[in-house]
Amino acid sequence: MSIRIGILGYGNLGRGVECAVAASPDMELAAVFTRRDPASLSIATAGVPVVSVKDTESWRDKIDVMILCGGSATDLPVQGPEYARQFHVVDSFDTHARIPEHYEAVDKAAKETGHIGIISVGWDPGLFSLARVYGNAILPDGKDYTFWGRGVSQGHSDAIRRIRGVRDARQYTVPVPEALEAVRAGKDPDLTTRQKHTRECYVVLEEGADAAYVEQAIKTMPNYFDEYDTTVHFISEEELQKNHSRLPHGGSVIRSGRTGHQKENHHVMEFKLDLDSNPEFTTSVLVAYARAAYRLAEEGQTGCRTVLDVPPAYLCTQSGEELRAHLL
Amino acid sequence: MSIRIGILGYGNLGRGVECAVAASPDMELAAVFTRRDPASLSIATAGVPVVSVKDTESWRDKIDVMILCGGSATDLPVQGPEYARQFHVVDSFDTHARIPEHYEAVDKAAKETGHIGIISVGWDPGLFSLARVYGNAILPDGKDYTFWGRGVSQGHSDAIRRIRGVRDARQYTVPVPEALEAVRAGKDPDLTTRQKHTRECYVVLEEGADAAYVEQAIKTMPNYFDEYDTTVHFISEEELQKNHSRLPHGGSVIRSGRTGHQKENHHVMEFKLDLDSNPEFTTSVLVAYARAAYRLAEEGQTGCRTVLDVPPAYLCTQSGEELRAHLL
Repeated sequence: MSIRIGILGYGNLGRGVECAVAASPDMELAAVFTRRDPASLSIATAGVPVVSVKDTESWRDKIDVMILCGGSATDLPVQGPEYARQFHVVDSFDTHARIPEHYEAVDKAAKETGHIGIISVGWDPGLFSLARVYGNAILPDGKDYTFWGRGVSQGHSDAIRRIRGVRDARQYTVPVPEALEAVRAGKDPDLTTRQKHTRECYVVLEEGADAAYVEQAIKTMPNYFDEYDTTVHFISEEELQKNHSRLPHGGSVIRSGRTGHQKENHHVMEFKLDLDSNPEFTTSVLVAYARAAYRLAEEGQTGCRTVLDVPPAYLCTQSGEELRAHLL
Repeated sequence: MSIRIGILGYGNLGRGVECAVAASPDMELAAVFTRRDPASLSIATAGVPVVSVKDTESWRDKIDVMILCGGSATDLPVQGPEYARQFHVVDSFDTHARIPEHYEAVDKAAKETGHIGIISVGWDPGLFSLARVYGNAILPDGKDYTFWGRGVSQGHSDAIRRIRGVRDARQYTVPVPEALEAVRAGKDPDLTTRQKHTRECYVVLEEGADAAYVEQAIKTMPNYFDEYDTTVHFISEEELQKNHSRLPHGGSVIRSGRTGHQKENHHVMEFKLDLDSNPEFTTSVLVAYARAAYRLAEEGQTGCRTVLDVPPAYLCTQSGEELRAHLL
């Protein structure tokens, strides 16, 4: 029997989940839930009902795992605990600083109602967290480095779009090659924010906007840009659509550590991602953890989990026996 | 209270475990067990008893986890089930084809006696298996690649040493740079054995040995060298000691996959290791999984496990709360 998946929210993530479920032979998409008028929403998969979020209650027995595809800023802090009372849920909550409180809220709701919730699934937090945990556990005497990019930061792109005179913008986060090389070579450098990443901005101006003002406003924006070497390129709307319409991303988590009685041996563990589509990859991770949520629930487990709590084998369609014979 | 570790077998792996336990604040080395005369063995850690393997029975209540440091060819297939009857055990069994039967043997012994056994721990099998499993689960439509090296293959070095006229030898397995680049670039090449790795041999001849014969014997050796482009360098014993006495290794597991309704987006996941000391890194992994074995045992779990079955958080000294706040 297939695992029946529900999608709550049909933006970039919802569409990615739909695509990843279609690529999973052990799953079927049961329904898409939306805050919009369901009649107004056309989805990619034929024959799958689109339902108002007000009607989730009547779907409790028809959904095995609900994948929450809202945003971390305002949607998921509410939706996580709310829907963990009705379903086994998986989300991609990625506000690192607020993970502990989100965990507690989902844990309470899930335990009280006998559900499983897996939160903060994706690549950072998610696979990058796993790389950090394996690295720290195996090389306790070492340093952690995380580099992001080259890739589009949607938060930074949005921040540029809020500047007066900007019609559209795309911001790429780029690791500094020399920093990355020094870390890979085991030099264990101490790196400032500026030494680790640069920021490249592609900006389409409104008619008659002041380019010098916009450039200055970007480069001095606190938290987002002021601590980085930032370059600003003004381009046409056509060029933005042609060359910057995709959402690539990636990066590396590196653990650089030492062993030996005199700490004479050096080791580098690196986990690296190079992604054409950030949302489609993120949702591929979400769907693998939906499979794990289903299995944990089948075992009668309840409460909140993160990627750190889930045995890797639970992500796979294969049995333990098959995994040991072919992938171990 | 510290986790009390026993080491069974004091070769390269045993010494590495000793070192990794010393670097773990939550562990202590309780005893080293040897097949040799205990009086003849001097170990690095002061004050730790060296005990004959014949006397393990009386240590059952004084060891929390026994780390089996024997070889995979003949030691571990016997020691795994034997000591899983007395202790919670961890081993580095690495004969991929025989993992299923080793698993069954350890599982039976451990279940019958209420113990936990974690087998095939290290980096391949081990961390590389994890990378394969995460890669396959997340990108079901994709290809797996494993590259080993640049690093010393002890099996291949031993094979050279068995040739008449060879005094000593060191063999490096080297990934072909063009193959690695093509995979990283997402070209999904089909690669033959010869296209993936080359083999570099550094050989010290016996006095008066026939170099041409030795070179020919190496290059045509079935399974070990005949399917590879192999280079042979004859060097002095001094040079071997000076430049080739360490045991570096490493490699990459790469999952190259596609997502999207038209499979239009390509993603590369790479897990890469660059290790100065293969045995010291392997034993660092063993010790992290000894911590996991202790926790699984504390929960009352029994039977055999592999790295695929162990939640990542179990490897860490930190609590779940600390991990969520700082590493997730």
